Amino acid sequence: MRTDLDRFFSPKSIAVIGASQDLSTISGQPLKFLQSHGYPGRLYPVNPRYREILGVACYPALADLPEVPDLALILVNAARVADVLTQCGAKGVPYVIIFSSGFAEMGGEGERRQVELVEIARRHRIGVIGPNCQGMIDVGARVFAGFGSVFNSDYDPGAVSMVSQSGGFGYTVMNLMSKDGGLPVRRIVTTGNEIGVSTLDFIDHYIRDPETGIIAAYVEGLKDARRLLDVGDRALLAGKPIVMWKVGNTEQGQTAVRSHTANPPGATALYKAAFRQRGIIQAEDIQDVIDYGRAFRCGRLPRGNRLAMITISGGAGILMTDECLARGMQVPQLAPETTQRLRAFVPEFASLVNPVDVTAAIFNQTDLVGRTLDAVLGDPNVDCVAMINASLQGELAVKVAAEIVAGASRSDKPVFLAWGARDAVSSEPYAMLDAAGIPHYKSPVRCGRAIAALAWYAEARRRRERERGEPVLALSGAGARAALAAGSAELSGDAAKRVLAEYGIPVHGADIATGGVEVIAGITNDSRFGPAVRFALGGLYAEVLADAAYRLAPVTRSDAREMIREIAGYPALARGRGRPPADVDALADVIVRLSALALDLEDRLAELEINPLIVLPAGQGVIAADASIRPMMQ
Amino acid sequence: MRTDLDRFFSPKSIAVIGASQDLSTISGQPLKFLQSHGYPGRLYPVNPRYREILGVACYPALADLPEVPDLALILVNAARVADVLTQCGAKGVPYVIIFSSGFAEMGGEGERRQVELVEIARRHRIGVIGPNCQGMIDVGARVFAGFGSVFNSDYDPGAVSMVSQSGGFGYTVMNLMSKDGGLPVRRIVTTGNEIGVSTLDFIDHYIRDPETGIIAAYVEGLKDARRLLDVGDRALLAGKPIVMWKVGNTEQGQTAVRSHTANPPGATALYKAAFRQRGIIQAEDIQDVIDYGRAFRCGRLPRGNRLAMITISGGAGILMTDECLARGMQVPQLAPETTQRLRAFVPEFASLVNPVDVTAAIFNQTDLVGRTLDAVLGDPNVDCVAMINASLQGELAVKVAAEIVAGASRSDKPVFLAWGARDAVSSEPYAMLDAAGIPHYKSPVRCGRAIAALAWYAEARRRRERERGEPVLALSGAGARAALAAGSAELSGDAAKRVLAEYGIPVHGADIATGGVEVIAGITNDSRFGPAVRFALGGLYAEVLADAAYRLAPVTRSDAREMIREIAGYPALARGRGRPPADVDALADVIVRLSALALDLEDRLAELEINPLIVLPAGQGVIAADASIRPMMQ
Repeated sequence: MRTDLDRFFSPKSIAVIGASQDLSTISGQPLKFLQSHGYPGRLYPVNPRYREILGVACYPALADLPEVPDLALILVNAARVADVLTQCGAKGVPYVIIFSSGFAEMGGEGERRQVELVEIARRHRIGVIGPNCQGMIDVGARVFAGFGSVFNSDYDPGAVSMVSQSGGFGYTVMNLMSKDGGLPVRRIVTTGNEIGVSTLDFIDHYIRDPETGIIAAYVEGLKDARRLLDVGDRALLAGKPIVMWKVGNTEQGQTAVRSHTANPPGATALYKAAFRQRGIIQAEDIQDVIDYGRAFRCGRLPRGNRLAMITISGGAGILMTDECLARGMQVPQLAPETTQRLRAFVPEFASLVNPVDVTAAIFNQTDLVGRTLDAVLGDPNVDCVAMINASLQGELAVKVAAEIVAGASRSDKPVFLAWGARDAVSSEPYAMLDAAGIPHYKSPVRCGRAIAALAWYAEARRRRERERGEPVLALSGAGARAALAAGSAELSGDAAKRVLAEYGIPVHGADIATGGVEVIAGITNDSRFGPAVRFALGGLYAEVLADAAYRLAPVTRSDAREMIREIAGYPALARGRGRPPADVDALADVIVRLSALALDLEDRLAELEINPLIVLPAGQGVIAADASIRPMMQ
Repeated sequence: MRTDLDRFFSPKSIAVIGASQDLSTISGQPLKFLQSHGYPGRLYPVNPRYREILGVACYPALADLPEVPDLALILVNAARVADVLTQCGAKGVPYVIIFSSGFAEMGGEGERRQVELVEIARRHRIGVIGPNCQGMIDVGARVFAGFGSVFNSDYDPGAVSMVSQSGGFGYTVMNLMSKDGGLPVRRIVTTGNEIGVSTLDFIDHYIRDPETGIIAAYVEGLKDARRLLDVGDRALLAGKPIVMWKVGNTEQGQTAVRSHTANPPGATALYKAAFRQRGIIQAEDIQDVIDYGRAFRCGRLPRGNRLAMITISGGAGILMTDECLARGMQVPQLAPETTQRLRAFVPEFASLVNPVDVTAAIFNQTDLVGRTLDAVLGDPNVDCVAMINASLQGELAVKVAAEIVAGASRSDKPVFLAWGARDAVSSEPYAMLDAAGIPHYKSPVRCGRAIAALAWYAEARRRRERERGEPVLALSGAGARAALAAGSAELSGDAAKRVLAEYGIPVHGADIATGGVEVIAGITNDSRFGPAVRFALGGLYAEVLADAAYRLAPVTRSDAREMIREIAGYPALARGRGRPPADVDALADVIVRLSALALDLEDRLAELEINPLIVLPAGQGVIAADASIRPMMQ
């Protein structure tokens, strides 16, 4: 696969194959928009029916062009795409966007056609984007190579780079985000059926692109999903947050995916596992993408999850408290010295319990806003601060905004605002906050959610840093490898236990264990994600509840501990009513060993399940009482 | 309590006690805003320090007024409120809004002061709103009796009436909803500590108010929560949806509630039970209130939960599918005759699986939009339709909107739009949809959520209709009543079982049951909600998972069946791996009997728990193996 994607985004010349003089049609729009948005390179419409389009000379065939274009847009009927792609190969075109529909998304004949395209692209080393896509925009380079309503507007270049498997929807998000959302976009590419350059290729490119600060992706399915671990890791190291919107999470949603762009939807649980392991922020609505993007633009990360709120509206403080606690934040008490410091100037009836309700009275003397911020930001129990300003507007709002900007500049902790005044009446204070990189939200719920996303990402970075120091357990089992040789049958009972034992997992007869908690631990070797480890409570639980933790291998010891704690049924393993705590250390050890086993037998193992795995009281270990292993089909 | 709240909302005269000439202060703003918004009645500022304010004659004391005002606003310091309220009583003022803070929300002395106010109000039969509130607005009657930034704007009157326990937050929502949300408000009242006229009094009034179509409420806690059943029932019958935002759902959120307006936060589970029993729609963010309000304005209810989507952007269809399925909707296949009808004119590569992806090609001939809508709306498998238009804008958008408006008018099924074009470029098509009462949303996720809310409400109305025909079981237990006489101790074992047996619940020794599923059924007699019945799986489940169903008594048989099915662990009671189905009929019977017991012993019983209640295989009944009963403290 080609990797010089800068050439794709900033082509010096573009051929538009199948360009039409009817500028309202799909094949007429790209040339029109390239021209109207001031594309600075050379344009070559190709169509034997015309001499010129929009004053640009039109060529009968690609072979007739005076140079090799950096990029070709293919706008011809599906049946003719293979021919045209071959011509691109012959000419030596490095990148091609295939807009045409009628491939795998329609099944049958379309699938056959798509296979042919893959073959041609490989033979000629063409970087193909699409088919069944809507092209791309590079705002700064003035490359508006696509079609659709959003191309009618112009945009300011920003720091967000996007990739979307859906054309219509990706551009809708880009348009709302750039304009109403105040979060301008640098680049967007829509990838459709993704037979060539993939979503992860583009993300990889964005990580290396110095102008990209935040990466947003709309994903229906990733053919090369295991690369999420590697790409995500580099993004995390580079400090470039990825906000990913993964759709098709219900069975019917997955059916809809397949009939749309023909991307494989894949297991929702494995996507979530990869997101968690690499701090990829999951979006669930357009507003999430905008809100989280604005949060990351502040350029600060909290050192922990402890949020203090300063509010003039108690109601909003309650909402934010509920939302933040539900998303893993803590709402700590202020330190006594902070309370004392505040007591000196806040009104008598102010509440100094977090959320700190200073009441609107502090606006009578606006420097109190700055003093309040200083006190709360200086609190050793506080990692980030949200201020809630209700609908404050007018002259007072400008003064208050100035105090907030100054106060935030005296600290390196993130400061967020929930401020419900309408844009129409508060453009000045909002512009002051924007200029200072202070995120602000109309709704305290959304503000809380955005802070939680920032804190979650910061925690993922810290976690990754810790894990980097942890050794990855590597084990090798010659006996197991032989037992899972090509064509071997499913293993169960003692045969399966012998495999486990070779990797140091304690096994025994199923009847000796009493007083333990039954759990299930296993491996899924997914065709796209590769080996993943699964953990769940056993018995009736496993049967009726979707309460399992997943991690892609390799799983470190702290990963394993986190898996155990994250299931809803975790209290069954902790000390309970007249029940000792279970041996979670031994359980974590089994999970780590399963990960090592999964990697060692990656080419042979399809699935493995220890059920039940009996977790005895702390210090007494675990026992794999029964297991089954399904070898990979050859 | 006074019930002539129309007099409160449309007072002929208003006294403003403690009015200030400093118009920027809290005590200066109400008179200013009443005047600037054109209040048509008589205004009487009361303050011995002034002769006039804003050209209006100012009176030294309330007693000096030439008439009895319909409403008095009290803006004096907390310490003086009791005196002033007594004067209001002596003068015969029917309604008083107490703006002042410094009561129960600050504890201690404030609590004592609040008790005094309650006493004065009762003695003089004054309808008190507040204290610690921000007043009210009746847009149509031009009564802007409050303070805060949102009073600077003017508003068009609408069909939504609101009540909010938080002043600052309530007005923020009202302002965003009326202006940017396109959902104008008729009346809003903020109730603060709510010592007199309560949230439910106002909702009750709005149900009877012919100009109110939709009711929105922000609630921290209801002192008279059991009235939710009665008030909610009348709202459901009247077809006036209540969108309620209940906050303080986490323990720390509840602490924040208590230090804010001093409303009792109460058990989240019981609120949810009441909402479900009466079709009260729960909001979780500002945008929910707006989105659901817009949904209900369409004036149509679907006959079932089956949604068909028509999309030109497959990506958005996937999102909406995921969201709707997660919220209890169905996404059925179209009937063969519908598919056949569509096949005649949609493009060859269109997908006729629901979501129906007709592709942007149908816009080449806009009458196809109307024909597509007719076909899908006419499908017998479809109760409502969402059309997804990506970012469509310009002239074409106007034509498409006209087709949609015409198509929707030929059916009585709800038609919703997910249409992501920005308001700034699509005011005309959006205005056409608004005029036709067709709800439209930028995000397909939010569109799906709004349809699901509409369908959920319609289902609640159907459920209530069915239940209305069901008899409520009434039982009477003289022995139980004696056993729970004043001062009696907690009952357990045989004593508790005797009580159960008297209400026809099968009891036995705990050791005889084998092969059954252990569940827990119980009663909580909540101080604010009254008797409620609870059901959960037993054993380890009950200990570690919050997976219980609640209903306020009386519980009908279909209520009971629904409770059983709604817990996550329900599959444990259904037919499973080598396990017969459990006797859910007998279980439902016990739940109904517990409800009858709870009502019969409402004045004596605090809590009852049957644990375990063993549910035997279908046809073999249930056995209460152990139980405990806690009498009410006298």
